[in-house]
Amino acid sequence: MIPRVPRDLRPLFEPRSVAVVGASNNPAKWGQWFARGAVSGEHRRSVYLVNRGGGEVLGRPTFRSLGDLPEAPELVVLAVPAAAFEESVDASLAAGARAVVAIAAGLGESGEEGLRRERSVVDRVRRAGAVLLGPNCMGVYDGAAGLDLASSDFEPGPIGLVSQSGNLALEVSLLAADVGLGISRFASLGNQADLEAGELVTSLIDHEPTRVIALYCEDFRDGRAFARAALEAVEAGKPVILLTVGAGEVGAQAARSHTGALVSNETAVEAACRAAGMVRVRSPRELIDLAQAELARVRPRGRRVVIVGDGGGHGIVASDVASAEGLDLPPLSDELQGRIAPHLPDAAPTRNPVDFAGAGEQFLTIFEDVTRIILESGEVDAALVTGYFGGYSEFSDEFQAEETEVALGMARAAKDTERALVVQSMYPRSPSLVALREAGVPVYREIEAAAWALARLADQAERSPRGVPELPPPAEGPVPTGYWEARELVASAGIELSPARRVTKADEARAAAAELGYPVAVKALGLLHKSDAGGVALGIANEGALGDALANMATLSPEGYSVERMAPVGDGVELIAGCIRDPRFGPIVLVGIGGIYAELLKDTAVALAPVDAPQAEELVRSLRGAAILEGARGRPPVDVPAAAEAVAALSQLAASRPDLAEIEINPLLVTSSGALVLDARVLSGENGADAR
Amino acid sequence: MIPRVPRDLRPLFEPRSVAVVGASNNPAKWGQWFARGAVSGEHRRSVYLVNRGGGEVLGRPTFRSLGDLPEAPELVVLAVPAAAFEESVDASLAAGARAVVAIAAGLGESGEEGLRRERSVVDRVRRAGAVLLGPNCMGVYDGAAGLDLASSDFEPGPIGLVSQSGNLALEVSLLAADVGLGISRFASLGNQADLEAGELVTSLIDHEPTRVIALYCEDFRDGRAFARAALEAVEAGKPVILLTVGAGEVGAQAARSHTGALVSNETAVEAACRAAGMVRVRSPRELIDLAQAELARVRPRGRRVVIVGDGGGHGIVASDVASAEGLDLPPLSDELQGRIAPHLPDAAPTRNPVDFAGAGEQFLTIFEDVTRIILESGEVDAALVTGYFGGYSEFSDEFQAEETEVALGMARAAKDTERALVVQSMYPRSPSLVALREAGVPVYREIEAAAWALARLADQAERSPRGVPELPPPAEGPVPTGYWEARELVASAGIELSPARRVTKADEARAAAAELGYPVAVKALGLLHKSDAGGVALGIANEGALGDALANMATLSPEGYSVERMAPVGDGVELIAGCIRDPRFGPIVLVGIGGIYAELLKDTAVALAPVDAPQAEELVRSLRGAAILEGARGRPPVDVPAAAEAVAALSQLAASRPDLAEIEINPLLVTSSGALVLDARVLSGENGADAR
Repeated sequence: MIPRVPRDLRPLFEPRSVAVVGASNNPAKWGQWFARGAVSGEHRRSVYLVNRGGGEVLGRPTFRSLGDLPEAPELVVLAVPAAAFEESVDASLAAGARAVVAIAAGLGESGEEGLRRERSVVDRVRRAGAVLLGPNCMGVYDGAAGLDLASSDFEPGPIGLVSQSGNLALEVSLLAADVGLGISRFASLGNQADLEAGELVTSLIDHEPTRVIALYCEDFRDGRAFARAALEAVEAGKPVILLTVGAGEVGAQAARSHTGALVSNETAVEAACRAAGMVRVRSPRELIDLAQAELARVRPRGRRVVIVGDGGGHGIVASDVASAEGLDLPPLSDELQGRIAPHLPDAAPTRNPVDFAGAGEQFLTIFEDVTRIILESGEVDAALVTGYFGGYSEFSDEFQAEETEVALGMARAAKDTERALVVQSMYPRSPSLVALREAGVPVYREIEAAAWALARLADQAERSPRGVPELPPPAEGPVPTGYWEARELVASAGIELSPARRVTKADEARAAAAELGYPVAVKALGLLHKSDAGGVALGIANEGALGDALANMATLSPEGYSVERMAPVGDGVELIAGCIRDPRFGPIVLVGIGGIYAELLKDTAVALAPVDAPQAEELVRSLRGAAILEGARGRPPVDVPAAAEAVAALSQLAASRPDLAEIEINPLLVTSSGALVLDARVLSGENGADAR
Repeated sequence: MIPRVPRDLRPLFEPRSVAVVGASNNPAKWGQWFARGAVSGEHRRSVYLVNRGGGEVLGRPTFRSLGDLPEAPELVVLAVPAAAFEESVDASLAAGARAVVAIAAGLGESGEEGLRRERSVVDRVRRAGAVLLGPNCMGVYDGAAGLDLASSDFEPGPIGLVSQSGNLALEVSLLAADVGLGISRFASLGNQADLEAGELVTSLIDHEPTRVIALYCEDFRDGRAFARAALEAVEAGKPVILLTVGAGEVGAQAARSHTGALVSNETAVEAACRAAGMVRVRSPRELIDLAQAELARVRPRGRRVVIVGDGGGHGIVASDVASAEGLDLPPLSDELQGRIAPHLPDAAPTRNPVDFAGAGEQFLTIFEDVTRIILESGEVDAALVTGYFGGYSEFSDEFQAEETEVALGMARAAKDTERALVVQSMYPRSPSLVALREAGVPVYREIEAAAWALARLADQAERSPRGVPELPPPAEGPVPTGYWEARELVASAGIELSPARRVTKADEARAAAAELGYPVAVKALGLLHKSDAGGVALGIANEGALGDALANMATLSPEGYSVERMAPVGDGVELIAGCIRDPRFGPIVLVGIGGIYAELLKDTAVALAPVDAPQAEELVRSLRGAAILEGARGRPPVDVPAAAEAVAALSQLAASRPDLAEIEINPLLVTSSGALVLDARVLSGENGADAR
């Protein structure tokens, strides 16, 4: 659990004094790397090198212990093995340290004993009012503070980087440097024994040099606290980019239900991203492509894009790629085309894409003029310039000067019109484009990167963060032991189920069916997997068929039967709705298109639970298949608000019952007149008991 | 139409003499660029500069006309405006030219008059036994022949490049240079008045320096001839990579039917790629990423991949990305893990991904040792090494030497075991990795590029080209004028339709329904859009309902009615099958999952038509939803061979009827006992008449 009141991490990132314990002259040892890094900041702060054996390190005198220092070190870096972990942390606290960075591996990540040792140390760190980064971490860096205590070399820049992998952080920084970006702060997460990702994100919100926050994280610990921290950063205008991986415990656990088959390992992360307004990326390259976009001086307010190419096939290729990324390429109005045509050669396409047809090399200024005219029109949210621009600088110094001026003119056009501009060029390192980047315009070498990043900005323009819901107080109640009890639990939340009667004998079943009206369904009770075992019979049309069905099921020796009125399945759309409890992010609600094609369609939407009815309706309407709910093949529209009410109630129920691992209503039949649950199941948390 | 006997293009790519007409001293003119290029090959061949005004160009004497040359120029480059097109081509032919390159724009691409002029010239070129590249083209290049007559600078290498865009060719060459690749031959397609893409591809098959063929093409002309040429190249061991765009006439035309809604502009290209074994890419970057992979010394024989990371999160990120690309990451056997574990630190993961956990920096040789052990095991088809490798060279010259040796050892391991190796590194320009590339191992900077390219090689390993089917002789027959005639056409191909009776009066309808048996469907005949207008009534249960339905439809004043036996829709799977005639690639057959979710699923497969029944069955079984055909929710498997017979018959019918633009059977209901067409429609070609 992250402490609710954010702690002051200044001693970690901007310490007034630093001590390196384990400082060494051996160039193959961490102790030398960190000593070297600390010494590079000698002009900014006091630096103390501690070496048990004494003597000099890097030409500086060392101290034999932290107790010998002339002042309390604000930050202590521990380049010592795991065996010395407790001892050296305690010594740091005794010496008055406010922040400790522990490099040692072999603690919490290696098993229970290590975890226990970490927890005990963290208690003492927190009682002392200090913070601990690591253990098993690669250090810390702060560009503006000149603090370089990380295993990699970073250049200063606008990206606040929090990473659970040193090598990935290094790759991110190398890719960043390629596009003129650097790192404002870096914290290596390590085992997150004390400081977790969320608290580090929080510390970047008020850090002025940090303009975008990037994380590589495998283990989210308190996922909701992390999501809240990210949401706060996003709302403060600092976009959060998350690189994470599919590992986790959810998948295996959830595969016991249909919801489980639709929930991937990544579902909870997806829900957290939508809640907090984070963007998930899948690689270091995407992280940097997006960071560049997030730093654009002008962001698009929607997804309407004009493609401007300077000739050849670039405009057409860009149009294809941009459309595939989900950007809209509206045809420019005749009026607007009429205004740009005089700038272009006779046959040049002006509809969208706009193609200069090679005229750029004669009149470079048309890049600025045409881009400005289009952006001023308001017909698009962004211009994507693609192809050769940047290459004119190759011709001569005069061309370079002119191209740079034109580039800055394009940037001004974007700023003046408050419409976004993104450039793809085969010469991305051209001085004109370096100038353009510095003016706040993202420049990409590959068209797919440019279009992808622009589409992510458009996504963000269209949907604001959903927010991180508070959990209701835990409720008590019996854990359903079977299908009938699962129905009762669902019904207790105010969700309507198909009318049913619980019976034990054939004559009771006949009476129930007569009362409900044929056709009916019969389900055997008390079986672990009622449908697999032949314990479900649907569409029973009359008393004779009912007798046959009961006779067949009797061989299963059920505890009893549920006789249910058959719903008009053909008249509606089958949805699936479920809640799972993720060990990191808590309850997650899922809705999806159900029925025979459910697992093929994989058309689902997820959110952190609980959701209210309007949020649930937004979820349902966000399905790709939402059009089918509006009426397909001449059917009337179905009652989406009723479905949303059921989903919201289910999510409230699940959020209040931490003892239940999964609750699923499937199918949730939605017709023009309402929403009706036709089957339900509940999995309890600890023992995995399965009530269906 | 490409001449059926391939012509000799040696005079175009390896001429013994070259003349440049329009050679100029003005550095802003094409005439100078081409003169400069020609002169750069003076040591290889005779070069003649022709300038109407005489005098010197680039310090060389010029000739006033081609007639003045001392010998027949094998190749003539025409840097003259469109007005001089005919005159200068004729002069070239008169002077004995075997190949002509025409740069001039403003001919065939600008309208009918230009097309007419081109056709007339091409007739004369062909009669003279010469070839013409262009007009509206950017020239020609041959690395081995030292022929540099293109608007861009190329470096020699293994990629044969044919492009309809000069700027995209330039971008491809810049990206190629980044990974040590160059261009063997380049031909700018221009308007393809004479030489088309297909014939140029054919010319590269026997061109030894060309090891992979890359095309950017917007306009395929004779698409089947192009596909045949590509197939021949692929079968000769020269992979063909196609960059193309979605433009084309198919989309607008096809949108008149459901097949049309499922057929994108790119469907015909997709069918051609599968027929010829070409790989479609969407950007220059993908083109070069794939070219590198196609040039790998060892190709994978399947999609089983081991990920080898040297620490940090690289192994996990790579696993996620590779899985998302459809690669398989089998867990290594316990036995194999037992053999690699001794090389790695204690807690290092060995299952897959294999993570060296930082041990690489202590023992670089484990990269070679572990990779070799895994590849030798035969448990995977390829190893994907990801992360830091390449960066060890940064430490010192000794590290660089050792890393290079280890890299070459990994390449040898791949060669010895005939298992593929691909490397992703954050230091792709490291000398060790340059050496690795030269040893035939693809090296990528981005993990998504490495995984994507490897997945494309796996695709190729798993599916051989389908072949380009010959078209049957055109058949004659009436063009269906309505739904009933469409049914009759489909039935004439031996395809079973739901039993139906054509009636005009209510009493005939009652008699037909009684004969067929209720429930029945009734469709009004003679309407343009029978279903939109309320001209279809399904599930009519009895005579009363039939009377109501007929009364309703009578207001539409139909020509008559089709009374049809209702099929057991709930017991089967609805497929959609259709054939469209693409103006470039001819008849294309499509199958897909039908029903309410068809356009949402977009689960379709396409092929050049005609297909035989086994090919049709392969198409059906390639659908993502194929598992549903095998029986879902406890249903029996459906009769896929019967569906395939219907699809094959439909494709044969469509291929033999060039006068029909579209034939569609939808739904094609497939049950456990057969396949039955429930509705059919035919669109004729020229007038777009719609028979449904």
